[in-house]
Amino acid sequence: MSTDRWTISTQLDVSYEIRETPSLLDLDNPTLADVLTSDSQGGTKLVIVDRAVARLYGARLERYLKEYDVPHRLLELLGDEGRKTMGQVLQVISALNEVGTLRASDAPVAIGGGVVLDVVGLAASLYRRGIPHTRVPTTLLSLVDVSVAAKTGVNFQGFRNRIGSYSPPPLTLVDPAFLSTVSTRQISNGGGEIFKMGLIKDPALFALLENGGPALVANKFQSPEGAEAIRRAIAGMIDELRNNLWEKDLRRAVDYGHSFSPLVEMRHVQQLLHGEAVALDCLLSAFIAHGRGYLNHHEVDRIAATATGLGLPTWHPGFADTDLLMQALADTMRHRNGNQNLPVVESIGRATFLNDVSAEEIADAAHRMKRLGEHQESELVQRGTNR
Amino acid sequence: MSTDRWTISTQLDVSYEIRETPSLLDLDNPTLADVLTSDSQGGTKLVIVDRAVARLYGARLERYLKEYDVPHRLLELLGDEGRKTMGQVLQVISALNEVGTLRASDAPVAIGGGVVLDVVGLAASLYRRGIPHTRVPTTLLSLVDVSVAAKTGVNFQGFRNRIGSYSPPPLTLVDPAFLSTVSTRQISNGGGEIFKMGLIKDPALFALLENGGPALVANKFQSPEGAEAIRRAIAGMIDELRNNLWEKDLRRAVDYGHSFSPLVEMRHVQQLLHGEAVALDCLLSAFIAHGRGYLNHHEVDRIAATATGLGLPTWHPGFADTDLLMQALADTMRHRNGNQNLPVVESIGRATFLNDVSAEEIADAAHRMKRLGEHQESELVQRGTNR
Repeated sequence: MSTDRWTISTQLDVSYEIRETPSLLDLDNPTLADVLTSDSQGGTKLVIVDRAVARLYGARLERYLKEYDVPHRLLELLGDEGRKTMGQVLQVISALNEVGTLRASDAPVAIGGGVVLDVVGLAASLYRRGIPHTRVPTTLLSLVDVSVAAKTGVNFQGFRNRIGSYSPPPLTLVDPAFLSTVSTRQISNGGGEIFKMGLIKDPALFALLENGGPALVANKFQSPEGAEAIRRAIAGMIDELRNNLWEKDLRRAVDYGHSFSPLVEMRHVQQLLHGEAVALDCLLSAFIAHGRGYLNHHEVDRIAATATGLGLPTWHPGFADTDLLMQALADTMRHRNGNQNLPVVESIGRATFLNDVSAEEIADAAHRMKRLGEHQESELVQRGTNR
Repeated sequence: MSTDRWTISTQLDVSYEIRETPSLLDLDNPTLADVLTSDSQGGTKLVIVDRAVARLYGARLERYLKEYDVPHRLLELLGDEGRKTMGQVLQVISALNEVGTLRASDAPVAIGGGVVLDVVGLAASLYRRGIPHTRVPTTLLSLVDVSVAAKTGVNFQGFRNRIGSYSPPPLTLVDPAFLSTVSTRQISNGGGEIFKMGLIKDPALFALLENGGPALVANKFQSPEGAEAIRRAIAGMIDELRNNLWEKDLRRAVDYGHSFSPLVEMRHVQQLLHGEAVALDCLLSAFIAHGRGYLNHHEVDRIAATATGLGLPTWHPGFADTDLLMQALADTMRHRNGNQNLPVVESIGRATFLNDVSAEEIADAAHRMKRLGEHQESELVQRGTNR
């Protein structure tokens, strides 16, 4: 045997489903129970619940699990961005180990917002080198973004999602009715990612937000227009991920709004929610696109007005710190393997990429963004109202 | 848009290479330098080195990297089983973040034994959700086992490899000359995995070990027979993994020796090395096979004698603890999704699986194994020698 060089070439098939399931916790809706029992070997199911969700839905959930005789243990996790940590991941792994979760049966379920779903996703991808699980998003942001993505992640040393994996769970159950108990600010937060999706690839979705933003937020996306916006956002995300799930192509339109925002969000994590930071980055990038002649002044104004209509900020002092913006871009470039690959909107509903944006352009765009913010602020003051 | 159910189906292509590269650190061998510079964007390479390797080869490595002008930072890790922890994984991720390792360039290299390669492998699979790296195994165990596998892992709460991922690095460079400075006990340790491979699928490999075990260990696999044994072990491992890299099929012959040993090894981690625990499990399983009529008495004796010839133990008090063995099997069954799938040798060089092994059979096999161990012990004492 003289071979001294070996190659292994193989393929991993990945398939996962996102399914709308209204009235998920209604006692006469067996869907969740069917999912939980279909892979049962009689073991205890770990049911991981966002503490905020447990407060509102804990009793209904317990009643549901009891009704359907699901042997389970509840584990509550904290859902704020500051708790998106390896510590919470290890807490989940420890609980999985304690209940004795098998390799491919008695899979856990996670119910909550993006932080909880990302934490559980990472734990499930690491425990025994990966087990299946089911996820149930309960916030607008997790419903349109996390619930479609293959990514898991936690923050580390001040960097957003520095640690993570690509590991989509086989099934995500979506029940928009959860949104009825979500705070208005958290609805707007989710609106930030829908806003992004409209801007990069779906003019009809943008039109829904532009024409009906305040109403969508006021009734928490419970209207037919709200359902339509959610479905368009999910479908758009799927379309973008389908052929680039592992991000081998680092030119990703869905990264729009995610170039400068990660570090700004982490630095101002007490003030800014993810979707707010994303929306601010979308607007900054719109001003950069405007400077390149892609978007005209009127379109930038429409973008800003649509953000405002969704209850999203159009200015934050974090974006006045040009050093921070450049530092953020430098780190984002490391994530894009040394390239800017900066997604910008060339016309509403269509994205392109820039690779030669200068510090001056960014500072200039931030300056214009600030002026617009001040202008809006003074208009609001004149109207006797305020954010 | 009325869709309320979406499916994403896609494939991940994975390809990786294991390449023999004699004299890896010789200044006139450009292979490692070529690998380190081929993906360079001018950043700093993180070079992670087992502390035991750094002590012996640190100066040569530094001279090599200097000669080839590779901008780098060295990070030393501890290679003992007790340090196969998430703590060391986070230490690597922190260092990657500090030197600013990119998503797909300036990839790190790991040089060391199995613990270090598994720790770095997990870190690399998590940092930015996965970056490439190169691994250089320096012990016999890591050379024939870890260096071929796709698995990474760390121990957690007393359970071996409870946390991990499937994430093979694109390239492994194998230089058997590292073995010349490895201790005899560590050579025997690696011999445990080669022994397993011979037993489950390669009679010619088993014959090499049976006929020349003591000589192989004495000259640290530096002979042509040693090279042949290493290559057969690597080729056998590749053959087993090629079509089951993600272990969708939980009946794995390469799990031979890994059914009872993980927990016994963890409980006696100060006394037992991995390959020693594996060899003990191989022998226990041989006695179980004998009880089923697969192996005759003579074959079991040959298996035990071959282990002894390789400097491997044939008995350890951990295997007298039937409760511990049953607890180990229960946890292994969770890892095999509720099934025993116990690989046993039906004849030397061929494996089969059992799914109905009883506690009595295991206790009986352990008892016979103990008697054989006592017998060998008394023979050794009579000959005036001892392990």
